[in-house]
Amino acid sequence: MQTIGIDLGGTNIKAALVGDGGQILRQMSCPTALPRPAEAICEDILGLCGELIRQAEGPVMGVGVGCPGTVDADAGMVLYANNLGWEMFPIGRILRQRLGMPVALANDANAAAYGEAMAGCAQDAQSAVILTLGTGVGGGVILDGRLLTGYTGGAAEPGHIIIQQGGEACTCGCRGCLEAYASATALIRQTRRAMRQNPRSLMHALTGQGPVTGRTAFDAAAAGDAAAQQVVDTYIQYLAVGVASLINLFFPQVVGLSGGVANQGEALLEPLRRAVEPMVYGHAFSQKHTRIVGCSLGYQAGLVGAAFLARGQA
Amino acid sequence: MQTIGIDLGGTNIKAALVGDGGQILRQMSCPTALPRPAEAICEDILGLCGELIRQAEGPVMGVGVGCPGTVDADAGMVLYANNLGWEMFPIGRILRQRLGMPVALANDANAAAYGEAMAGCAQDAQSAVILTLGTGVGGGVILDGRLLTGYTGGAAEPGHIIIQQGGEACTCGCRGCLEAYASATALIRQTRRAMRQNPRSLMHALTGQGPVTGRTAFDAAAAGDAAAQQVVDTYIQYLAVGVASLINLFFPQVVGLSGGVANQGEALLEPLRRAVEPMVYGHAFSQKHTRIVGCSLGYQAGLVGAAFLARGQA
Repeated sequence: MQTIGIDLGGTNIKAALVGDGGQILRQMSCPTALPRPAEAICEDILGLCGELIRQAEGPVMGVGVGCPGTVDADAGMVLYANNLGWEMFPIGRILRQRLGMPVALANDANAAAYGEAMAGCAQDAQSAVILTLGTGVGGGVILDGRLLTGYTGGAAEPGHIIIQQGGEACTCGCRGCLEAYASATALIRQTRRAMRQNPRSLMHALTGQGPVTGRTAFDAAAAGDAAAQQVVDTYIQYLAVGVASLINLFFPQVVGLSGGVANQGEALLEPLRRAVEPMVYGHAFSQKHTRIVGCSLGYQAGLVGAAFLARGQA
Repeated sequence: MQTIGIDLGGTNIKAALVGDGGQILRQMSCPTALPRPAEAICEDILGLCGELIRQAEGPVMGVGVGCPGTVDADAGMVLYANNLGWEMFPIGRILRQRLGMPVALANDANAAAYGEAMAGCAQDAQSAVILTLGTGVGGGVILDGRLLTGYTGGAAEPGHIIIQQGGEACTCGCRGCLEAYASATALIRQTRRAMRQNPRSLMHALTGQGPVTGRTAFDAAAAGDAAAQQVVDTYIQYLAVGVASLINLFFPQVVGLSGGVANQGEALLEPLRRAVEPMVYGHAFSQKHTRIVGCSLGYQAGLVGAAFLARGQA
C-alpha cells in the first residue's frame, strides 16, 4: 500500500510517497515561509500531495500529517501550534475534503516515533518508547503497533515527566522536567556552566570562537578532559533517571533515542545502559529486558511515520 | 458471565464469584498461613474455587488470580514473589489443568487497578491510571479496557518513577522513587520527622502513646496545627509531581487513588488537583482534562479485577 507522509515544520513542509515496507519512493518539499495564513500552508500541502499522486505508480491510499503542537487526531484538528501561530485549525478535515481520501493527523514527535516503531529501530517490537533529545525532549509511545495518544489526545510528553522536584526551570513553565536536564539545550547549558567553572578545560580550546554545542563536552571528554567527563557523566545520569522511569511504567521492548545528542551513538548509549539497569524495577528477576538503542531513520522518521499513520485510516 | 476472582495475599486467600456487572455474588477466604509450600496454597485456592462453582447458579466461565510479585501473565507463571517465597511457580498452568477452565494471572496491584477500571472509579473511562498509596505505592494502567503489562510483563510500576534524582532511599534499592515520598510509609516518616522538629505540635497529643499513622498529620492539620499542615502540603506536592508525570505520559481520562492515604478523600484530592493542574503539559489548550478521583471498590478491587481478567480468557 502506498501512502503519503507530510512533515510540517517551522522551516519546511516535507512530503514523501512511502511504499509498503516504509521505503521512501519519492520526496519533495517547499518552504513553510512563516508567517502566513494557515490556509496558504494547506494549499502548499495540497500541491505537494497532488504532485506525488501524479508521479505515483499505482493508487495512493491516504495521507498522514505530522504537525507541531497539540493535535486532536480524531477531529483532524490542530488545537494549538505555537510556532505556526495556529489555534483550532481543522487541517485534517480540509485536506480530506479536498483530496477525497483518508487523512490522519498526529503531533510531529508522535509521527516520528511511530515511524521508528513501524520501520526503524523498533520495527517488529511489541512496544517502544522513542525519546528525541533535541532543542527540547519530545517523543512518543507505541504499544502493540498503536500510538499512545491518551484521552485528551496530548500523550505522550516524555520530556515533561518531572525527575527533580523543584529543580531546573523548564520551557513549559514547570520545574525539574526531564527536558530541562536531558535536551541538547540543557546539555549546552550544563557545558557552559562547567566551562565557566573550569577556565583551563579543553572545552574552551575545542569551541574556540565558535558556539558551544551538544558535542563540546562529549568531544573534550573523549580527549581526556576531566571537567568535560563530569558534564557527560552528570548528563547521562539525568537521562538515565528519565529512561528508567519510562521503563518502570511501560516496560517496553525498545527505548529508542534520536535527535542531536543521540548522534553520540555508543559513547552515549553504553554508559546510559549501565546507569539505567540498576534503576529498572525487578530487573534481576525478569527474563526479558528493554533494549536501549539509537533510532535509525533520522530526519525521515516523521515522514515515514506520518505515511504509516495514514494506513490506519485507509 | 460469571467468573471467579482470587486475591492471593500474604495473610489471606480471598475468593469471590463475580457477576456480569462486577457485583460480588459470593465470597469466601482462608488464611494463607505462610510459610508453607506453593502447592499447598494451590490446593486451598482449588478448594475455594470448587466451593464457589458448587454454589453458583449457572456456569462459571473462568478464574482470575491476582498475585503479589512479578508475574508472566502469558505463561501463567509467578516469576518471583518475595512475600510468598515463590520463584518460577506455574500457578496458572496448575489451576487451569485441575479446574479445566481458563485461568488468568496478574500482579495483585494490576488486578486491583483493573477492577477499578472495569467496575469502579474509572468504569466506562477510555483510560485510567490507578495509584495505591499504602505500605508502598503500587498501581496499574488501563488503556482502552486493556491492562498495560509491557513487553517484560512487569508494567506498570508507577511507584518507581523517580521524582527526585538522588533523593530519599526507596525499598527497591534506588533513590528518589515516588514510593519513597508518597506511600503511607513515607508520610509516616515525614510526620515523625516533623514531630521531632516540633515538640509542641498537636501531632504529639493526637498520637498520645499510640503509633504515628498516615492520618496523624492530616488530623492535626485539620485542627489547625501549622507543623502538621506543612507535612500535608509537602506530601501533597510530592504526590502531585508523580501524578503530573503520569498524566504527561498517559493523559488518561481518570487518575484513581486508593489505599490508606486516599481515605482522606477531598482533604487530599482537592489540594492535589490544584497542585497537579499547573504541571500538566498543555493544560490551557486542551479541551479534555484528566479527572483525579478516589477509588470506589476498596479492598474488593482485587477480587473484582481478577474476575474481570478471567473474562478476557474465557
